[in-house]
Amino acid sequence: MQGIWLENNQLQLRTNIPIPEPPPGEALVRVLCAGVCNTDLELKRGYYPYTGILGHEFVGVVEQGPQHLVNQRVVGEINAVCGQCRFCRSGQPTHCENRTVLGIVNRNGAFAEYLCLPIQNLHPVPENIPTEVATFTEPLAAALEIQQQVQLRPDDRVLVIGDGKLGQLVAQTLALTGCDLLVVGRHQDKLAHLEARGIKTGFADTVTDRAFDISVECTGNSEGFALAHRALRPRGTLVLKSTYAGKLSLDASSLVVDEITLIGSRCGPFAPALELLAQEKVDVKSLINACYPLADGLAAFERAQTKGVLKVLLEMS
Amino acid sequence: MQGIWLENNQLQLRTNIPIPEPPPGEALVRVLCAGVCNTDLELKRGYYPYTGILGHEFVGVVEQGPQHLVNQRVVGEINAVCGQCRFCRSGQPTHCENRTVLGIVNRNGAFAEYLCLPIQNLHPVPENIPTEVATFTEPLAAALEIQQQVQLRPDDRVLVIGDGKLGQLVAQTLALTGCDLLVVGRHQDKLAHLEARGIKTGFADTVTDRAFDISVECTGNSEGFALAHRALRPRGTLVLKSTYAGKLSLDASSLVVDEITLIGSRCGPFAPALELLAQEKVDVKSLINACYPLADGLAAFERAQTKGVLKVLLEMS
Repeated sequence: MQGIWLENNQLQLRTNIPIPEPPPGEALVRVLCAGVCNTDLELKRGYYPYTGILGHEFVGVVEQGPQHLVNQRVVGEINAVCGQCRFCRSGQPTHCENRTVLGIVNRNGAFAEYLCLPIQNLHPVPENIPTEVATFTEPLAAALEIQQQVQLRPDDRVLVIGDGKLGQLVAQTLALTGCDLLVVGRHQDKLAHLEARGIKTGFADTVTDRAFDISVECTGNSEGFALAHRALRPRGTLVLKSTYAGKLSLDASSLVVDEITLIGSRCGPFAPALELLAQEKVDVKSLINACYPLADGLAAFERAQTKGVLKVLLEMS
Repeated sequence: MQGIWLENNQLQLRTNIPIPEPPPGEALVRVLCAGVCNTDLELKRGYYPYTGILGHEFVGVVEQGPQHLVNQRVVGEINAVCGQCRFCRSGQPTHCENRTVLGIVNRNGAFAEYLCLPIQNLHPVPENIPTEVATFTEPLAAALEIQQQVQLRPDDRVLVIGDGKLGQLVAQTLALTGCDLLVVGRHQDKLAHLEARGIKTGFADTVTDRAFDISVECTGNSEGFALAHRALRPRGTLVLKSTYAGKLSLDASSLVVDEITLIGSRCGPFAPALELLAQEKVDVKSLINACYPLADGLAAFERAQTKGVLKVLLEMS
């Protein structure tokens, strides 16, 4: 089968990858569509040593697996877990000590014709959700993780920093809580997507220092972090939602003096993400800039790295 | 009056400082005893620009003030607040936007014969607490702030890093919660104080990676922070309890992947601190290495910076 293979920071389109055989407990999924995420771009840059097929945002059809799933469209949680370790046993499987992660850690990913995932990871996609829309389930779930970690109240002043793929989804999910939301970014056209949905936006210079209860950093760069920090009131909460390459330098004294809480946030719950997409409470279609066939996967990566581009999808068939 | 004056990173014993006149709402306190804190040492090193009398841990006797306090021994909360700003109004006076802070921000401190503080800041000292013991009320309150911020359960594995003044108080207060506690430091003699109270201690090499639910960084240096971080399990909580000079460099990606919570912690509640001292549930006497008269204040500072020394007190009369 074809697949986009990462090795030594080089991407290749390989055409001779064997179709995987699902081990016991796993299903074979024929991939329909997959999304390019910033984490894929960071992996290519060497953020974490990974060799294999990239990709972790996908919709597919189960070809081998339990009867109730065969021929169903599914999305899949990306952490394949052991079920035995202290985190699995304590109900925190995304932190399984023995996990592999689709297209990220020791498990071939979704930029290919087929993938395998544990059956328990798969969620059927409601019929009314188009395939390209359902491809956003994984990043939308990650956005919803914030609300699993931080209690949001309607009178909370919340700042989202970053108008990219992740910032767009974070902003839309936070807006649903009714909080007092401002999104700042660097691209008027990207911010316009949010303005169109009634979300307040601006550039960094519109942010008042020490004015926000919660800030969510979705840029992955140190300027974004610095802004997220200075925007917070004392005892505010800074959510780190992005992938950071390299070290971050911060003013620890001001964290202490202002008793700031900083919280890292990663994978989130799939069920509410699918629910939001089914109910069309979140718009993802307008974030899609391009669809490429898998055979043009390398061009898709180029496109995804281009300034001004939001989501690039790969379509497998 | 005499006082230890900081100006341009230089300490002076001044003898001609006017006795302050308390403004409306404030009391005049004759200082009996004051403790040298690491923050004083950091201020001398230039951590924050301050000019004036240093010192914020004290016991004194009210000489001018409301009838019920005159001639009472008191300790005092160090943040003098406006009562009007959004933080005062929301019950978070230690974060008052217009605060002055005793011996730290725009308010002369306790290393002098007299000081002024708002009447509402003063707490009478129960008769059974000796004056030198009550001098620990402020740092003990700061240690108790952790328990205001983080819920501790008896089965939590908690790591305290640092066997200095602050680490000693943090460890003793955490031990009272019944949590599974380990304190690591670099000084066998300092750790011995905690061992004597039945608290497990060790050196850094005894810390198992990813084994602790909560870690409390009490060293103020980057090695301590790195240890506090690597010791935490995923979704663990790192409490920053120390004064940090300069920037801290951290691995933000691992904060995100492991969904770590980092929380800065500063001033805490005086009433429970006094209660613990009155009930002798915390031992502070063994932490006192030396008492100096105010006139020898500069020597006291030298002593406080000497390796192996815990608390140095100044006695005013």
